[in-house]
This record gives sequence, structure tokens and C-alpha cells, in this order.
Amino acid sequence: MAERLSLGNNGVALLANALATGGTLFVLITIFGPLSGAHFNPAVSLAFAMRRELTWRMAGAYVVAQLLGAVLGVYAAHAMFAQPIWQVSAKLRDGPSQAFSEFVATFGLIATIFGTLRFRQAATPATVSLYIVAAYWFTASTSFANPAVTFARALSNTFAGIAPPSAPAFIAAQIVGCVAAVISMSWLLRSADSD
Amino acid sequence: MAERLSLGNNGVALLANALATGGTLFVLITIFGPLSGAHFNPAVSLAFAMRRELTWRMAGAYVVAQLLGAVLGVYAAHAMFAQPIWQVSAKLRDGPSQAFSEFVATFGLIATIFGTLRFRQAATPATVSLYIVAAYWFTASTSFANPAVTFARALSNTFAGIAPPSAPAFIAAQIVGCVAAVISMSWLLRSADSD
Amino acid sequence: MAERLSLGNNGVALLANALATGGTLFVLITIFGPLSGAHFNPAVSLAFAMRRELTWRMAGAYVVAQLLGAVLGVYAAHAMFAQPIWQVSAKLRDGPSQAFSEFVATFGLIATIFGTLRFRQAATPATVSLYIVAAYWFTASTSFANPAVTFARALSNTFAGIAPPSAPAFIAAQIVGCVAAVISMSWLLRSADSD
Amino acid sequence: MAERLSLGNNGVALLANALATGGTLFVLITIFGPLSGAHFNPAVSLAFAMRRELTWRMAGAYVVAQLLGAVLGVYAAHAMFAQPIWQVSAKLRDGPSQAFSEFVATFGLIATIFGTLRFRQAATPATVSLYIVAAYWFTASTSFANPAVTFARALSNTFAGIAPPSAPAFIAAQIVGCVAAVISMSWLLRSADSD
Repeated sequence: MAERLSLGNNGVALLANALATGGTLFVLITIFGPLSGAHFNPAVSLAFAMRRELTWRMAGAYVVAQLLGAVLGVYAAHAMFAQPIWQVSAKLRDGPSQAFSEFVATFGLIATIFGTLRFRQAATPATVSLYIVAAYWFTASTSFANPAVTFARALSNTFAGIAPPSAPAFIAAQIVGCVAAVISMSWLLRSADSD
Repeated sequence: MAERLSLGNNGVALLANALATGGTLFVLITIFGPLSGAHFNPAVSLAFAMRRELTWRMAGAYVVAQLLGAVLGVYAAHAMFAQPIWQVSAKLRDGPSQAFSEFVATFGLIATIFGTLRFRQAATPATVSLYIVAAYWFTASTSFANPAVTFARALSNTFAGIAPPSAPAFIAAQIVGCVAAVISMSWLLRSADSD
Repeated sequence: MAERLSLGNNGVALLANALATGGTLFVLITIFGPLSGAHFNPAVSLAFAMRRELTWRMAGAYVVAQLLGAVLGVYAAHAMFAQPIWQVSAKLRDGPSQAFSEFVATFGLIATIFGTLRFRQAATPATVSLYIVAAYWFTASTSFANPAVTFARALSNTFAGIAPPSAPAFIAAQIVGCVAAVISMSWLLRSADSD
Repeated sequence: MAERLSLGNNGVALLANALATGGTLFVLITIFGPLSGAHFNPAVSLAFAMRRELTWRMAGAYVVAQLLGAVLGVYAAHAMFAQPIWQVSAKLRDGPSQAFSEFVATFGLIATIFGTLRFRQAATPATVSLYIVAAYWFTASTSFANPAVTFARALSNTFAGIAPPSAPAFIAAQIVGCVAAVISMSWLLRSADSD
């Protein structure tokens, strides 16, 4: 919708996309947090599994559900905008600066989640959604920060898509960013405890 | 106002409309929630009646008040913008993708309301208003999601209007989305209880 | 700033102005609410005086401070943007639709304040600031809703100004809107008590 | 990102920058507030040292960390956007109106922090981030309000940069604004106590 209406002004389209994503995340985390933890993101489930707050088996089941949900969401969007359901993105997003962006974006997301859970658990819907709105702009990749979303957006040939050959580097950078954040935040929050 | 000022950039107009709608909803739900439940929407009253949290007789009275309020609101907007009070929209919004958009929008709204009430009642003004801001963008229909609003906007020949021949499909899709959400959320929240 | 940067797109300028006003109001009400009540607005002080929650003598002193603060604020803005301090607006804002807009805007503001104070006092900074952001867009006058602001903006020949001959009708409409809101909300909240 | 996408509409770029800055600040203050106080700003550490809530020695260590963090942040942004890491800004920001803007911006920031801490400590992430979003627009300098940020942005030749010859006046104005705010707020909050 954003893309069609703001012809020639992708800034407005991105602004609308960022707000829609942030608003939706706030709602979903508020509602599904008490039900399932509201991960929606394989990087988040990986982080909880690394910290042994989720079994690896459960994390695997979460990832399957996340991939299914992401693809169904893309298909629903195609249906709402009267586009063919089946698409493959042709939008290349290559190069080290794109991968570094996804590393930073995912590092920040995981750090936001564990940082907020530590002292201000009730603020999680606000911090995660505001982080994602901000990361749209402070990264060069519009901050996918989610392997399931990366996979699903390879199936959408719109300005939000990512060509399949570009996806593996995105997913690798996201996983590295996630692991780096789990290690950094474990150290930071442990040193806070010992003060 | 948005439309007149952002000539040639409907994206900015929609952004302003979305923020104005969301901000107003937050205020109205905060104030009228404790007074009347702050429905403003026949789909919401239908959902509460289906769950037997509102008598059908009371739901009927709510719908009459909702229709009256929506039409008076449209008339007040016409008066503020120095337009003729009586108008009929000529803006066709037809086709299955529009109806599917309204199904999704209303399903999400009702799910948001019952999901939030279940665990985070105090967050209802925030989640409902952010949901509506987001749904402006992730649907193709700008998310009416309200039969009374659909009826009243048929009486406004502006970019927010809907031609009377397009209205019945919108309202039908909203009712189906509402019923589907009541059934889904009842199942989801019941299975959460039995965990 | 908004006006200079968004040449040819007043929609973006208004959006930025609305957000800046809303954000500032949230901050000021949060900080000055516990100190002085955070009125900043003769219509608000009038409403509290009518409800006998403020002496008329104190309300008069508040109005003097509000007028002084508003004019100093306009002068500071002129200094920050390297404009002549002393200006008189040439921007006419006449006609019944403008006055009706100010009636609606001020009615809604006062209703928002007393409605929030009644059941959700802690939400006042949020509801008042979101109301003002929204009213920028749903009125035709960009919602001054404040006699002191109207007076001060007569002294600024920018797109936010108002020509002195247009100001009296704005102020009269604001006062009528304020009185109507005090009467309506007293009735509404009293009938809520007797339920 | 904002700059590249919104060619010819710097208003949208600034809007995106303001939202990204505000969102990030909310997240960082929420997470690091309980860990370190979440200063990120030599003016803030100076204010706490003046009020003897931080030793001067600790304030010095904070400033070193703030300068390092700001420069590393600029370098990371350059890397994400595939630009040369080492840059020097050529963007002059001179004149008394720019310095007065930075005085006002920093005065307001420090007043916001101490005003919120006094009565509504939990609202600090919200008030500080909303203040910064608003000050982007109500100042002529886009509100740097932070000596470390001023220093680091001298090392970025983008639209957010500041040429080294313009930086000293910015930093001086920020320090004067900080000192004036500490004095004013101490008086204001003390007179509130004695009421």
C-alpha cells in the first residue's frame, strides 16, 4: 500500500512500513508474550535455547511454526493486494555492508530483548517494537533481523522482497549477530549482578 | 486536511489519517472504557454478545448509538471543512481483495481486543490504537473494520468515502471476520487455560 | 524548520509540527503536572475555575503567566530561526468552519482532560498529547484550542500564525467549546456515578 | 538511509531520523538506566556531577566512554552504508541562532531529565526520547544537545555532520545550557518542596 501511494517517495513508504511493523509487533508481543513467549523469530528462539531457557527440541518446533507463519503472512498480503500468491523476489541485497547491517540489526534486537527482560520485563513490547522501527533507518538493509522473515520475503517480488541468492548471507549474518549478542549480554548482565 | 495539504502525495495523507485515527482511539478508549466499554463498533458489540458478555438487546442499542455517532461525526467533519453536509460517496472499493482485506482487518481487531483483555487489560487503549494504525497499511482497504464507520463513510464523497454499492461486501466481510475471530480466540485462550 | 525543509509538501511540515507539539506536551504535562497542574492554557484554567477546583483569582494569575509564556516562546522560536523578534501575522483564518473547528477542538480537549482525570489520572500526559496530535488533522484549523497560543501566534508571521483580525473569533469559539465541555462532562460523569 | 531514499524531501528524512533517534533512546535508557544511569551525553554527566550525584572522577570516565562510543557508532554507520570509515564534515552550522538553538535544546533536555526524575522516575525513557524527537523540529539546529555527538558528527560528511570549525560553539552553547538548567531546576524543584 505504502509503495503504491507514495510514488516517487520511498521515504514515506518506508516510514509507513516501519510504523506498521512496529505497531503490529507491539500488539503481537503484548498478546502472545504470556501465551508462547512471542518469539516469531528463529534468532530469538536460538538465543533462548543457547541460554537454556528453551529446549532445543522446542526451539526446533518454534522455528517450523515461524517459517510457516511468515510464508502464510506473505501469501495473505499478496491476496489482500490482488497479486499472484506465488512470487520469487528478484531484488538483490548483496555486499558486506548489507551483511554487516543485518549483523548489527540482529545483535541489537537480541540485546534489546535480554536487556529489557532483565530489569523492565513489562516494557518488552515497547522496547522491541521501537527498536525495530528505529533499525529500519539506522541500518542499510531496513533491518530484517529475522531468518523466517528473510525466507518468506524471498517469496515476494515487491520492494520488501529479497532475491533468494541474497538470502543466505542475510541469515548467516543474523545468526552470528544473535550469538554475539547472547555472549555479550550474558557477560554484561552478569557483571551487573556482581556489582 | 491531510488530502488538501499533501497534493500528489497520498502516502503522507494516509500517514496523517492513520496517526489521527490511532491517537483519537487511544483517547476515546481510555476515557469511555470505564464508562461504557468503548465499543464504537458494531463488530465489537457483536463479539461481546456472542461471548454472552453483553445482552443482545443491549448490543442492539449500542449499534443504533454507533450508527448515529458515526454519521454525526462525518457531518461535523464536513462542517469543519466547509463542505456540504449531505454527500454520497462515489468511490468504488470492489473486488475480492478488498473484501479479504476487511476480513483480515476485522479478524485482527477482534483478536487484539480479546487477546489483550485476557492478560493485559490496561494495555487495551495502546494495542487497539496501534493495531488500527498498522492495519491502515498492511491491508489494501485502509482497514475500515467497522460496519458503522463503513455506513457513515458512504455519506462522505472524499478520499475516505466508500460508494454505497461497495458497502455491503465490506460489512459482510467485517461480520465474517468478527465471527471467525471470536471462535479462534475462544479456542486459543481456552487451550491456554488448560495448560 | 519543518516549513523550510519540506518545500512544496506542507503535509510533511504539519506532520512534523504535530509530532513536535505532542511530544513536547507529553514532557511538559509529565513534569509540571505535579508542580502546578500543567495548564498552559486559559481554557483549561477556566474549566477548573468553573468546577471550583481553582479559585478565580488563581485562574487569573495563571492566565497572565500563560500569555507571557506563550509570547516568550514565540520570541525564542524567532531567535532560534534567525527571524526578526517582532512580527505580526498576516495569515487570515476566517469563516464559520474555522470557528466551528476551534469549538470542536477545545470541546474535545477539555473533555479529554476531565474524562481522563476521572478514571485514569496517570494517563493524562498520553491522552492530552495524543488528542492534540490527532486534532491537528481532524479539524480545519489545525486545532489551536488555546487562547494564549492564539494570542501569541498573532505575533508570528509564519505558516503557524494567525492574523490579529482572525484571533477574536478563534478565542470566542474556544471559550464556548470549553464551557460546553465542562457542562457536558459534568453531566456525563455524574450519571456514571449514579449507575 | 533516510537521506538516500527521500531525494528532494529532507522533511521526510528528518522525520525518519527523529523517530529512529527517539526510538533508540527509549530502548537504550530502558535497558542501561538500571545498569549505568544511561547518560550517553557529557552534558548529562556534567549535570549529575554538579548536583553531586556523581563524582567528578567518575564523570570524567563517563565522558571518555561517551566520546569513544559516539565515534564507534559513526564508524559503524559508515560501514553499514558502504562509505569510507574516515570522513571529516564540511557542513558549516554557524551563527548566533544555531548556538542559541543548542542552548535551548540542551537546557530543555537537562530540565526534562531532572523534572521527570523528581516525580515520575519511571517515565524517564518516554520523556527524554519524546523531548529529543520534538527538539529536532522546534530548534534550528536539529538539536544535537550532546557534546560527544557533536564531536563524533564532525567525523561524518553526511547531512547529519557538523564541520569541525562549527563544533566548538555548539559544545560551548550546550555546556552553558546544561549549567543554566541545573541552576533553574534546582531552584524550581526546591521551591516545590517548600510549598
